[in-house]
Order: sequence, then C-alpha cells, then structure tokens
Amino acid sequence: MKVNGIPTRSIRSLDGGTAVEIVDQTSLPYHYETRVLNDWRDCVEAIANMRVRGAPLIGITGAWGVVLAAKEDPENAALLAAADAIANARPTAVNLSWAVHRMMGALLPREPSLRFEAAVKLAEAMTQEDVLTCRAIGEAGAPLIADLYQKLRRPVNILTHCNAGWLATVDYGTALAPIYAAFERGTPLHVWVDETRPRNQGLLTAWELAQHGVPHTIIADNAGGQLMQQGDVDLVIVGADRITRRGDVANKIGTYLKALAAHDNDVPFYVAAPSSTIDWKLTDGKRQIPIENRASSELLSVRGIDSTGRIAAVQIAPVEEAVANPAFDVTHNRFVTGLITERGVVAPTDLTSVFSDKLLPEGGAS
Amino acid sequence: MKVNGIPTRSIRSLDGGTAVEIVDQTSLPYHYETRVLNDWRDCVEAIANMRVRGAPLIGITGAWGVVLAAKEDPENAALLAAADAIANARPTAVNLSWAVHRMMGALLPREPSLRFEAAVKLAEAMTQEDVLTCRAIGEAGAPLIADLYQKLRRPVNILTHCNAGWLATVDYGTALAPIYAAFERGTPLHVWVDETRPRNQGLLTAWELAQHGVPHTIIADNAGGQLMQQGDVDLVIVGADRITRRGDVANKIGTYLKALAAHDNDVPFYVAAPSSTIDWKLTDGKRQIPIENRASSELLSVRGIDSTGRIAAVQIAPVEEAVANPAFDVTHNRFVTGLITERGVVAPTDLTSVFSDKLLPEGGAS
Repeated sequence: MKVNGIPTRSIRSLDGGTAVEIVDQTSLPYHYETRVLNDWRDCVEAIANMRVRGAPLIGITGAWGVVLAAKEDPENAALLAAADAIANARPTAVNLSWAVHRMMGALLPREPSLRFEAAVKLAEAMTQEDVLTCRAIGEAGAPLIADLYQKLRRPVNILTHCNAGWLATVDYGTALAPIYAAFERGTPLHVWVDETRPRNQGLLTAWELAQHGVPHTIIADNAGGQLMQQGDVDLVIVGADRITRRGDVANKIGTYLKALAAHDNDVPFYVAAPSSTIDWKLTDGKRQIPIENRASSELLSVRGIDSTGRIAAVQIAPVEEAVANPAFDVTHNRFVTGLITERGVVAPTDLTSVFSDKLLPEGGAS
Repeated sequence: MKVNGIPTRSIRSLDGGTAVEIVDQTSLPYHYETRVLNDWRDCVEAIANMRVRGAPLIGITGAWGVVLAAKEDPENAALLAAADAIANARPTAVNLSWAVHRMMGALLPREPSLRFEAAVKLAEAMTQEDVLTCRAIGEAGAPLIADLYQKLRRPVNILTHCNAGWLATVDYGTALAPIYAAFERGTPLHVWVDETRPRNQGLLTAWELAQHGVPHTIIADNAGGQLMQQGDVDLVIVGADRITRRGDVANKIGTYLKALAAHDNDVPFYVAAPSSTIDWKLTDGKRQIPIENRASSELLSVRGIDSTGRIAAVQIAPVEEAVANPAFDVTHNRFVTGLITERGVVAPTDLTSVFSDKLLPEGGAS
C-alpha cells in the first residue's frame, strides 16, 4: 500500500537477507520512520516493543529473525536458543510460533552451512505468501461490502477495532483488505475507527485509511455500541491474533465488547485472518488462549504531539496507581458471523472442514 | 468526603448565596483547585465545560445558577431567559432541567423582590437533600457488597465506569456511595476503574478512591469484558444521567458495552441514582433520550502531566481527522439487575410503583 503516494511494505529484506528494514510503528501516526534490524535480537526487541505489530507481521518478522539467527550462528544450539527467544517475544499471536516453527522445520534437517541460504529463501517465500494471502482475504471480503451497498444504496458503514491493516501484515492487511478492495472497486463506504486504548492502534488505521483516501471517522472505544444502537454500523470487520478450531477468536482487547454489541443489534460481525492464525490444537478460546498482560505505562502514559510539534508523552495519572492491562480478549464463536480467510468466507464451525488439509502438522506447526 | 484528609463538598454557597464555590474538576486528578462562580453565566460555563459534571451535581449547580440569576435580575423576563440557558447547558442529564424547573416553580409565584431569598433557601435545601439522598443510596447498596463478601470470603471486585463518586454529586456519590459505605463498615473490596475515554473521568474516580484508601485498579475501557470472562468482576455499579420510567438507563458512553458483558457473564449490573434522575415522561430510552455529541478535541487532545511536571495536552491525531463523540449511551432495562435508589434497591420495572408519588408533577418537573 502507499505512503505519501509511494508503494510501501511494512517489512523488506536488505542485502540478500543479511538485514531487514521495517516501518517503525511506534513513531506513527506522527512521523513515518523506517528502521534496519541487523540481528535476531533486534527482531525480538521490535516485536516485544511493538515496533512491528499485528499477528501476521509479527510472524513474518519472526521468520526474518530466524534468518538473522542463522546468519550469526547456524549450529543447532545457538539456532534453537534464538528461535525460542523469538517465538516467545510475545505470547498471544499464534502466527509467531507458527512462523518460527515453520522456519526451524525447514532448517534443522539441513547442514548448518546451508541453513542461512535456505532461511532467506523460505522467509522470502513466506513474505510473498503473506501478501497473496491478504490479497485473497480482500477478494473474499469485498463482496460482503458490495452486497450491503446494493441493499442499502448509501455508503456502507464498517466498524473496525485496532489496526488490522497493511501495517499489521506485509501488505493489504486482514480486516482492512476487504475495505481496500471494495474501495478500489468503487463501493461507497465509510469506516468507524476505534481508538483502541491503551496503545491507540486505531490511529494507525486512521493514518492508513487517510493515505488511501478512504472516508473514516475516529471514535472512542466506548462509542461503538451507541452507534450500532442508532443503526450507524452496517458491518464489523476485525482481525485476529489467534483463532481456535471451533472459531473462538482472540483479538485486541475490546473486540469482545464490540462483538456483544453487534450481536445485540443484529450487525454482522466478521473476523478477517489468514489460516496461519488458527491454532488447531485449541478449541475453547476463553480457557485455552494465553492472554498477554502488558506494562501499566502503556495506559498511564499517552503519546502525541506537544504544543511545540514534537512527539511527547503525558502522564494521565500518578505512577503509583495500580493498572491492569490485558492486551487481548476472546470472542466466543457464537458471536462471529463468519471468518474471512484466504479461502473465502467460512462459518466458525466450518473451519476444520474448509482447512482439513491444514490439520496435519506442517513444519511442526500442528 | 475528604481531600487531603479534610472533609470537602464539590459545591458550596458563599456569602449568603451571592456566590458559589466549586471544585474545578478539569484540573483533577492533577491539581486540586476551587473556583468561585459569581454569575449565572459562570454556572452555565462551568456546566458546559465540565468544571462540574455528574448528573446530580449538574442539577445542584443549575439550582445555584437560578439563585445567581435571581440576584442579578428577579423579573420574569430575565429570570426565564437565564433559567432557559441554564437548563440547556447540557442536554442529556435530566437532573439539570429537573432542578431548574423546581427552582422556577417555587420562584415564579412570588414577588420578584422576594425571589432571591427564596431561591437561596430552596437551593440550600436541595443541596442538603442531595447529600441525604446519596447517603441513602450508599445505605441501600452497601448490603449488596456485604452479601457478596459473605458468599465469596475474599475481597469483592466491583467494576465502575466514569465517575459517579462524590465529585459527581454534592457528597458521597451515587455509584461510589455503596462502595464507600461498605468500605467504611469494613467489607473487603476492590474497585476496577474504567478509564472512561474520551474525558477520562475514571481518573477522577481513582483519585477519589485513593483519597479514601479504597483499593482500586485502573483499566482501559476495553478491558472490562475480559475481566468478567475471567471471573474477576463480581458486581458492576454505575451511575446514570437519565432513567426512563421502565428503567432504561442513559449513562456515560461505554456503559452499555459493560452491561452487555455483565449480562453475558452473569455478573449483576446495578445502576445507582437518585429518583431525580428518572424522567417520568419517557419510556423507551434508545428512542427518546437525546444523546449529546461533544467536540472532537475531547478525543484528539489528551491532558496529563508533561515531563516538566506541568499540566499539558498532547494531540494524538491530526486535527483534520473526523471524530464522532457521543457522550452517552442507553442501556435497555433487560440488562439492569437493579436500581440502587434513595428508597432501596428497585427492579427497573418496579420504578413506577416504588415512586408512584413522584409520577405527579412537582414544580413543573413532571
């Protein structure tokens, strides 16, 4: 997708895979900055500190982390230790361990001396695969929006939470992919963008949409229910960090509340995600998906632009205040109208049949 | 309640009712400041700009506004014009028009020359009444918490949204009144405090609770559903800005989402409010209660303490971004376990029987 009119991806390899360049998302939406990662530890830091974020992009960054680990030391002991650190940089998104396991599954059978080259090849392929997957998600989801437009004959109002746009993937996005695809085909639409406290990733969504000229309005996370009650939301599309085999969905904290409101107001609630987000080992999301708790500073310190035009933070309450900061919640499959995947729109309970070929392990990702 | 150990009320009259002193809540939780209102226009400004906020306190400030209007010019034309401006300073809370109508109903039958004196007397009585009402709400609600403690034998976890504490009333609060009453009787408890974007009134709640030593934890508005899913919330208590005769509740934006989550997780959801919050003219809250839309700057500009220790604001997204900022939402009575009123805990559908004497107009407030 575009930044200032120039086609851009959220991550790309440099110098034959000996380094990786990312868009540093901690500077957005204020400044657009890229950052070069030369070492697998840089990848861990970038994932943990959310310079890169979004389940698919975390996975791809993890894959490139394995590449950089193989560059540094391709022997089993070092490579396994690095892979372990990378896979655990964040706990909730399954894509990260999926990507690391897939890389390791391909590398470990090879001679150490051949691993770096193989790693670059596979990471490039996974990067390209992510792009194609997101494009397919866009193709699958765009007709949902077009059909609503045919029915309503006015711009379709879509609510999204967090950022599941191209910044959360390599390109196109997951939840935003159908929106971009529909917009490019001329379907009139408007996006309600949840702020998404405490990290305000909704501002990344607003920035992305603004770069592409997609009409949108920022709202507080609290406002979505009221808008649905008033008939101002026709469709909800969110991304996912982990999906169980029965279609329970872990996504950014607050998603569950929007799913409840959509259910109460008969608004269709869709989750757009690649099948790599599905954790086939899990069934009951509420009981089985680990929820990451993050630092209290994420809530108590708010970043923005100060009166001098610089990026600055204000402390909204005393540091002594106790804070709980769970980063994700789980939405039960009964609140999910459908999953928009690279294989089309699938009912939560049909995942195992539509993806029956994925149920068997591939590179340890079972 | 106490500020730095000193008993304090959110509003008090000065010099025989010729002026009013308020706690300026726009400086909290950073600085504790009081402000003197000498003119009814100051009252309108204080209400509109949320120096005073919370339905009961808005009502009392409106009553004192009428006093100051009667001081300036007690003739019908001027007094009616001022009363109209005061009653419309904010649209959603019914307490404001209730208080203004009650004042005017008492003043208009009198000679203009006698109006100021009568106004001071009634405003003082209404102020004292608010204190007694909130104390009664505390008495009515405290046993709900004590009973849960008897059952659970561990601190009772109560979630609240916005600020319905003593800062939202003259003293004691509405939603926080039962919490203060239970805490003072030694019931072990802990409060989850919703941040309450965009104005962050949850930080006022945290400040209040900290002043009284009540254990509490601040959370993002998005987090409440996840906490309920995990069994970490035993009870929700919120305030109200307007309640219909069948018990639909307008309260701070986001309340509805918490009510849905409470319902989905079998957590009791209580609304604490004086009967002056009930609008007997209305039945269907979603269709009939007007919802105030506030400025986009409330969302895009976040106040806190900067690195030099001063109150400052940061701009979290460009001012060109479109923002929708509805300030309230409506929770249908089917999600309300009970209303904690000055006459005890009442089922939403029993309001008309418990308050049958209030159904007839009193001072034009029908």
